[in-house]
Amino acid sequence: MKIILKDGKKFILRFDRGEELIEELKKFCLAKKIKAAFFSAIGAASQVELAHYDIDKKRYSNKIIRQKLEIDSLLGNTTLMDGKIIVHGHGVFSDQTMQAQAGHVNRLTIAATCEIFLEVLRGGVKRKYDEKTGLNLMV
Amino acid sequence: MKIILKDGKKFILRFDRGEELIEELKKFCLAKKIKAAFFSAIGAASQVELAHYDIDKKRYSNKIIRQKLEIDSLLGNTTLMDGKIIVHGHGVFSDQTMQAQAGHVNRLTIAATCEIFLEVLRGGVKRKYDEKTGLNLMV
Amino acid sequence: MKIILKDGKKFILRFDRGEELIEELKKFCLAKKIKAAFFSAIGAASQVELAHYDIDKKRYSNKIIRQKLEIDSLLGNTTLMDGKIIVHGHGVFSDQTMQAQAGHVNRLTIAATCEIFLEVLRGGVKRKYDEKTGLNLMV
Repeated sequence: MKIILKDGKKFILRFDRGEELIEELKKFCLAKKIKAAFFSAIGAASQVELAHYDIDKKRYSNKIIRQKLEIDSLLGNTTLMDGKIIVHGHGVFSDQTMQAQAGHVNRLTIAATCEIFLEVLRGGVKRKYDEKTGLNLMV
Repeated sequence: MKIILKDGKKFILRFDRGEELIEELKKFCLAKKIKAAFFSAIGAASQVELAHYDIDKKRYSNKIIRQKLEIDSLLGNTTLMDGKIIVHGHGVFSDQTMQAQAGHVNRLTIAATCEIFLEVLRGGVKRKYDEKTGLNLMV
Repeated sequence: MKIILKDGKKFILRFDRGEELIEELKKFCLAKKIKAAFFSAIGAASQVELAHYDIDKKRYSNKIIRQKLEIDSLLGNTTLMDGKIIVHGHGVFSDQTMQAQAGHVNRLTIAATCEIFLEVLRGGVKRKYDEKTGLNLMV
């Protein structure tokens, strides 16, 4: 991952072939001591693990797609939980048919490149486990 | 709806189970006297009413999806028309198959949670009915 | 294209029926001497040329969709390469079935309207051809 531009609390980051985006983004937030940020990204991936949440079963179902994919949209945020950085991202992806698949992003391996715009927010956001939904909600 | 963070004119908002996002967002803009903003969001929904515009017939067709859905992307803006707040949002949604459905969002009922990043813009934007397109355009 | 609002380095732009978005956005960046920006947009299109990149063949495959489409999401950035403005955008689109198609956007013809939020970044970003990926990467 490379910092392409820094303009105050705004960053353009470039992720490269073979990098796993969620993990790399955590490392970036850790290094920069970022306590809250949002981001949007486009690019290309070689693999993605998508998830869908069933609120009744309080369980995610997963699907791994191993294909050359366009990252058509990736939106998300970074927060803190028990002192650890949480990266929460949802994405839309397409193969050569241009049909879109989408979901909660567990893991995302970059192919050619991924271009992220990230903005740091002053103050920090924490998450806490919520019994009712079974999720770690922003508090 | 809860304000999770406020950093100047930037907000992180959390919407909760059962809330209808478009209506709640209007209330927030009204309470805060917001005349122009843009937003992006991810989360989960229990129901969405999507619409597609036919410019020749000057009419929207609608489709209500009642399913556990990931909100993979929601992009939009808030403006004013005749003194009333207009929330204009387009979204992408997926069920457990990860196939994406998308469109203009008429109504969106939150399931587990929805995390919105909203930025207020100075100056305000108004809409006016446009005869040619049959839509309320930004002016 | 019309500038609806300017708040410092942030713009709301409106694109109108028949305009080709990528080309119009280049003209705007040229006129305003913008060296780096990111944008997000929603709207409606009458035609889009989507592309998908095959990193092994170092070649894009294309698909032109001529239909009334919702622009459900358009995310991208503007940069410079050899002194020329490059607009890089990925989009998600849907017809009256609400099924989503997505990809790298080569050309996008606006139908009723398209509402863009664009933020200029200080400093500028350049691209350079990269032998390994066959793409013009941010440097």
